Amino acid sequence: MRVFNFSAGPAALPLEVLEQARAEMTDWAGTGMSVMEVSHRGKAFTALAERAERRLRALLALPPDYRVLFLQGGATGQFAAVPLNLAAQGSGADYLNTGVWSDKAIQEAGRLGVRVSVVADEAASHYTTVPERSALRLDPRAAYVHYTPNETIGGVEFPYVPETGAVPLVADMSSTLLSRPIEVGRFGLIYAGAQKNIGPAGLCLVIVHEALLGRARAQIPAILSYARMAESGSMLNTPPTFAWYIADLVFQWIEARGGLAAMAEHNRTKAERLYAAIDASGLYRNPVARECRSWMNVPFTLARPELEAPFLAEAAQAGLTHLEGHRSVGGLRASLYNAVPLAAVDALIAFMREFERRRG
Amino acid sequence: MRVFNFSAGPAALPLEVLEQARAEMTDWAGTGMSVMEVSHRGKAFTALAERAERRLRALLALPPDYRVLFLQGGATGQFAAVPLNLAAQGSGADYLNTGVWSDKAIQEAGRLGVRVSVVADEAASHYTTVPERSALRLDPRAAYVHYTPNETIGGVEFPYVPETGAVPLVADMSSTLLSRPIEVGRFGLIYAGAQKNIGPAGLCLVIVHEALLGRARAQIPAILSYARMAESGSMLNTPPTFAWYIADLVFQWIEARGGLAAMAEHNRTKAERLYAAIDASGLYRNPVARECRSWMNVPFTLARPELEAPFLAEAAQAGLTHLEGHRSVGGLRASLYNAVPLAAVDALIAFMREFERRRG
Repeated sequence: MRVFNFSAGPAALPLEVLEQARAEMTDWAGTGMSVMEVSHRGKAFTALAERAERRLRALLALPPDYRVLFLQGGATGQFAAVPLNLAAQGSGADYLNTGVWSDKAIQEAGRLGVRVSVVADEAASHYTTVPERSALRLDPRAAYVHYTPNETIGGVEFPYVPETGAVPLVADMSSTLLSRPIEVGRFGLIYAGAQKNIGPAGLCLVIVHEALLGRARAQIPAILSYARMAESGSMLNTPPTFAWYIADLVFQWIEARGGLAAMAEHNRTKAERLYAAIDASGLYRNPVARECRSWMNVPFTLARPELEAPFLAEAAQAGLTHLEGHRSVGGLRASLYNAVPLAAVDALIAFMREFERRRG
Repeated sequence: MRVFNFSAGPAALPLEVLEQARAEMTDWAGTGMSVMEVSHRGKAFTALAERAERRLRALLALPPDYRVLFLQGGATGQFAAVPLNLAAQGSGADYLNTGVWSDKAIQEAGRLGVRVSVVADEAASHYTTVPERSALRLDPRAAYVHYTPNETIGGVEFPYVPETGAVPLVADMSSTLLSRPIEVGRFGLIYAGAQKNIGPAGLCLVIVHEALLGRARAQIPAILSYARMAESGSMLNTPPTFAWYIADLVFQWIEARGGLAAMAEHNRTKAERLYAAIDASGLYRNPVARECRSWMNVPFTLARPELEAPFLAEAAQAGLTHLEGHRSVGGLRASLYNAVPLAAVDALIAFMREFERRRG
């Protein structure tokens, strides 16, 4: 009996992907072994790795001068990898602060000897907005500009891509990548923890323009070096093979459903329905400015906060899980990643209406 | 149809573990979700994480002043984490060089600003020996002593634990941990990539004495900081939840089979049978000094190297896989981790005898 899972990550995976993984669990691709049990350097796995990259490149229409890395350590690892690869000790980088995750990236860069300029900070709106496009004053000598296109906790999303001229734009796309088409050519570097739209936790995708390889500091841990990972096909050491395998199945699942344009339509529809239901209600409220509401993470509060606990308990009873807000902010949150079906959103909306009628 | 899998890693997993993972793939622990789809901070997963640590502590009879970390980045990540956590920039550490993996650890420490003293180097024997116990001349002011109890490629294993006095002993136990009982109290730090005796690739266990927390350099990436990972229960960021789950099932499997003493007996028996068959043959040869032959990795060569390719092809036909030596050294290798049954070794020996009779 499957539930409707609104987790912000590790998030829901497509049932078809799980069913295929189940069918192949003790004998994958005719090897007589699980995919977890085969050498990452053997023919079967290297074929999988190449196929996964090919699929991802096709989904994203990736220009040939970008490299794709399948790494460990999550986006938090990339908070360190970005400065260590792109900024010499003491050099400057511009960061946009739109919430918890951009702030974490800022803290880590500062710890690692980057002179961080926070060129925009949405504290005044309690991080319910993004900076005005025209208000960004960027340093043309910065090593890079870093931002978080979607803040998973705040539910805030950039409706535009910042213009950074010749300065490489770096984006934490953990909650964005594969949710819709993106124009990769505008970015120097994109990274994303897999546990949203890509696959299981423990895998992190990095998409990096070739021109940014080879700028790393001498004292960089090998596992964080883009150049060394690129030259070894992400196999400088044993990669997270099972997570890579699931990602390949997810890419295939997206492909079969019409690619990223279809995902965008699917995700836009889900988000619009849920925001409309929230806005139409007297009990629920989403605090984010309309033009930058996230398609992926919909935080909401109850006009009567004492109803949060019964809401969560009754939702769980109704087969709607993971609706609690992040522990740092409280409230409620529904995350609507690719694998969350429209039926889940409809069931959530029906439950919310019924709860409001009964308890509101 | 399952094969006998002699992979050096990612290595064979117990069939019972895979079968349980298969049974729970779409509905784990009554959650209505895969274990990959639940929040790492939810009740179900935190219970799993605590149970896994409890089981590991019991298996190893771990003293209470050691912390257990479930990390990403593999042993190669630890090649960097060890110096960044334990050695100030420019300070000295002693390393024993017994082969490919200890050499990789040495290179990484050197790159990260450690003054590395290679206090033993088995180059003269082509890395088929370990240093004499009494010959080690260690620096009492070293930040730590690092060694590799089992060299996975060379098939060389220390029959003793080096005495390091007050200097913390650090061991890369990727191919040792859980293969037999160990006296943890003699070590300051033990680390192990999971993909041998523990679980899938993408998880790395670190067992660290509390006294070694808090010595890290200021400029350490957060994901490599033992102190920060210890204080967050290995959840500074999203951990590799599926790999952690499989590790818990593996711990349970070892427990049910009598714990590490039983594993030691099982592994010793397998290794003795295979070495005896090799030594008795005119075609096969293991180059390692008898007193330090690995229980886990048995490299061997053929007196007629042109027979290697037919050996591998016919072995694969017979359902015996992953017998090629590491690409850096060639030859053949059978890895005999916990999940490799005695029947696999018997089948391999029978095949080797038959091949020698026919082709030798």
